[in-house]
Amino acid sequence: MDDNSNTLTLADAFAQATFRVSGNGPRNLNVLKEAFEPIDGTTSSDHYGHGEWIEQFQQQMADVLGKPAAVFFPSGTMAQQIALRIWCDRNGIKRVAYHPLSHLELHEQNALKELHQIESVLIGDKDRVTQLEDVRSIKEDISCLLLELPQREIGGQLPSFEQVEAIANYCREQGIRLHLDGARLFEITPYYGKTAAEICSLFDTVYISFYKGIGGIAGAILAGEADVMQEAKVWKHRHGGNLIGLYPYIVSSKYYYEQRIGKMGEYYEQAKQLAALLHACSHIHTLPEVPVSNMFHVHIDHPVEVATQALKELAQQYDIGITSYLVDHNGSCSFECTIGDKYALVPQQQLQEAMTWLDQKLASTV
Amino acid sequence: MDDNSNTLTLADAFAQATFRVSGNGPRNLNVLKEAFEPIDGTTSSDHYGHGEWIEQFQQQMADVLGKPAAVFFPSGTMAQQIALRIWCDRNGIKRVAYHPLSHLELHEQNALKELHQIESVLIGDKDRVTQLEDVRSIKEDISCLLLELPQREIGGQLPSFEQVEAIANYCREQGIRLHLDGARLFEITPYYGKTAAEICSLFDTVYISFYKGIGGIAGAILAGEADVMQEAKVWKHRHGGNLIGLYPYIVSSKYYYEQRIGKMGEYYEQAKQLAALLHACSHIHTLPEVPVSNMFHVHIDHPVEVATQALKELAQQYDIGITSYLVDHNGSCSFECTIGDKYALVPQQQLQEAMTWLDQKLASTV
Repeated sequence: MDDNSNTLTLADAFAQATFRVSGNGPRNLNVLKEAFEPIDGTTSSDHYGHGEWIEQFQQQMADVLGKPAAVFFPSGTMAQQIALRIWCDRNGIKRVAYHPLSHLELHEQNALKELHQIESVLIGDKDRVTQLEDVRSIKEDISCLLLELPQREIGGQLPSFEQVEAIANYCREQGIRLHLDGARLFEITPYYGKTAAEICSLFDTVYISFYKGIGGIAGAILAGEADVMQEAKVWKHRHGGNLIGLYPYIVSSKYYYEQRIGKMGEYYEQAKQLAALLHACSHIHTLPEVPVSNMFHVHIDHPVEVATQALKELAQQYDIGITSYLVDHNGSCSFECTIGDKYALVPQQQLQEAMTWLDQKLASTV
Repeated sequence: MDDNSNTLTLADAFAQATFRVSGNGPRNLNVLKEAFEPIDGTTSSDHYGHGEWIEQFQQQMADVLGKPAAVFFPSGTMAQQIALRIWCDRNGIKRVAYHPLSHLELHEQNALKELHQIESVLIGDKDRVTQLEDVRSIKEDISCLLLELPQREIGGQLPSFEQVEAIANYCREQGIRLHLDGARLFEITPYYGKTAAEICSLFDTVYISFYKGIGGIAGAILAGEADVMQEAKVWKHRHGGNLIGLYPYIVSSKYYYEQRIGKMGEYYEQAKQLAALLHACSHIHTLPEVPVSNMFHVHIDHPVEVATQALKELAQQYDIGITSYLVDHNGSCSFECTIGDKYALVPQQQLQEAMTWLDQKLASTV
């Protein structure tokens, strides 16, 4: 331990390490500068939803997702509320259902209720993925079911593809619209062995994000039938998302999409490799044990102070950042690990040695 | 007339002219590239409303507007609905009042009603600015009055500052909150001979835009008391505007703010000069006759085809673009003129000659 180890935060230690197991590097202004470097600056801005850049990218994403139309949004929070609002208006029932740990439940300030007067039914157990039985058990009439694939808050777990098909069939029979929260859709294509379009074919509307695995600045796409997307544009306007120029997000989304879309299989394999190394350490388990995408959660069965100290020391001794933060669970702690471009740069021998050290460190700590 | 004049559109002729009386140049991707050129790319992105760039700029704008706090928004459509929602919630009356040609009435897809269930009372005559008498005549209880200064859809006209003070006093007495649609606030400071903060002191909340006179890419500020801005942040989140990174708009807003804030007096003088030249042409009048900001409307008492042909010929013969479009009023037509950086580059002798030609052209056309 060197002298500054007590004042150094875990975030500092992570930032100062030469190598990092997660991410694509810092979210700084170079992310934008790099994306705009090759761009011809005399190209016109999009103009309130019209213009070459936005229309071309919307069509490209509609094609990738196998839907007739797509609309670019500044955020998924906006895109998903709007999809659910449209289905509620069409079905005449202001109620939808989703997993208890859905983004809409945890991270949107109760927007669906406050802005759209839509009630939500939380289905199934928060600690596992949604199953057909959960959907069958819904007692209330609902307009739409939102499925999040993968389920981020439980480590990015997935139901089997057959389960998703069964849910989709059931919803179709019952006249329930099915919406995909596909913030991390591209990241699950290797595990399912399906294209994005094959997965999306089970859903009426689909949202994808450009700052998760793709690593862009911000931005989202909502895709579906043309008439639904026409309505979504009106609601985007009402939400204040129909900006005079969305090109900062569109240009960067397209740039990083093209740079990383071919790497999802690699990230998935690396996630499995790293999870196995971490899971093998004493007092550590990963969730899921074997990842099904580029992400997983890491639970450490030690108080947060003990784990912080160990991971700071690891970062300094082995020059590898494992995480920048830990969530305190009162006696144990956890963090989320998302594989990006940085993992491939970590020297494998050094990582193995660091893991051996961590295993012993955590085993010997009472 | 040269050969291509029949296929050439007015927009083409405007774009091809070396000189233009309006605007700051094309809205293309160089607007972003120029703003980011001097920026240190290793600076961190803002993160869901936090971070150096967004917090510093919000404080800077709060100071400029003389308010305790300010929140950066992707759009004015979002910022203004939220201000009105907060005042309605606090006063317990879901009704607001504004001019019949307000942006909320014309350009927001009825969002206030559809998203926030707020009714609007349209006050006064659409062809003139709001007066104290219009406000006194409101029969319904309202939570908030929105004043747009200048009133864009009628050429950017303004009530006297004394009228605005009288309205503000009346609202305060009646417990009605006063919100400023200040999309073009900086542009009216020279005419009123007041600072932005002096004007804003009459209002409870204030919205300003960064892509009108300032010429940025997009973005808005809402300013007011700290507790109101705290609530505005929650609503911004619900609207889907609390992006993980808003820096593309913040960096560019700050860059163009600093570049153009000192030029508002110059734009105002140039607007008066150009309006006088145009108003002197036969069959043309400007609204207002003498501008009170950098903008005014130009009405041509000829069918749109005749005016289009004349302005295309003028652009080609004198190399000066007057407008890129005309609005057809069935026998007459009009366009909006907004002075920016481009006006100062127009050779005055050439402009005078072009105006003399236009006067004769329109006089001789039946």
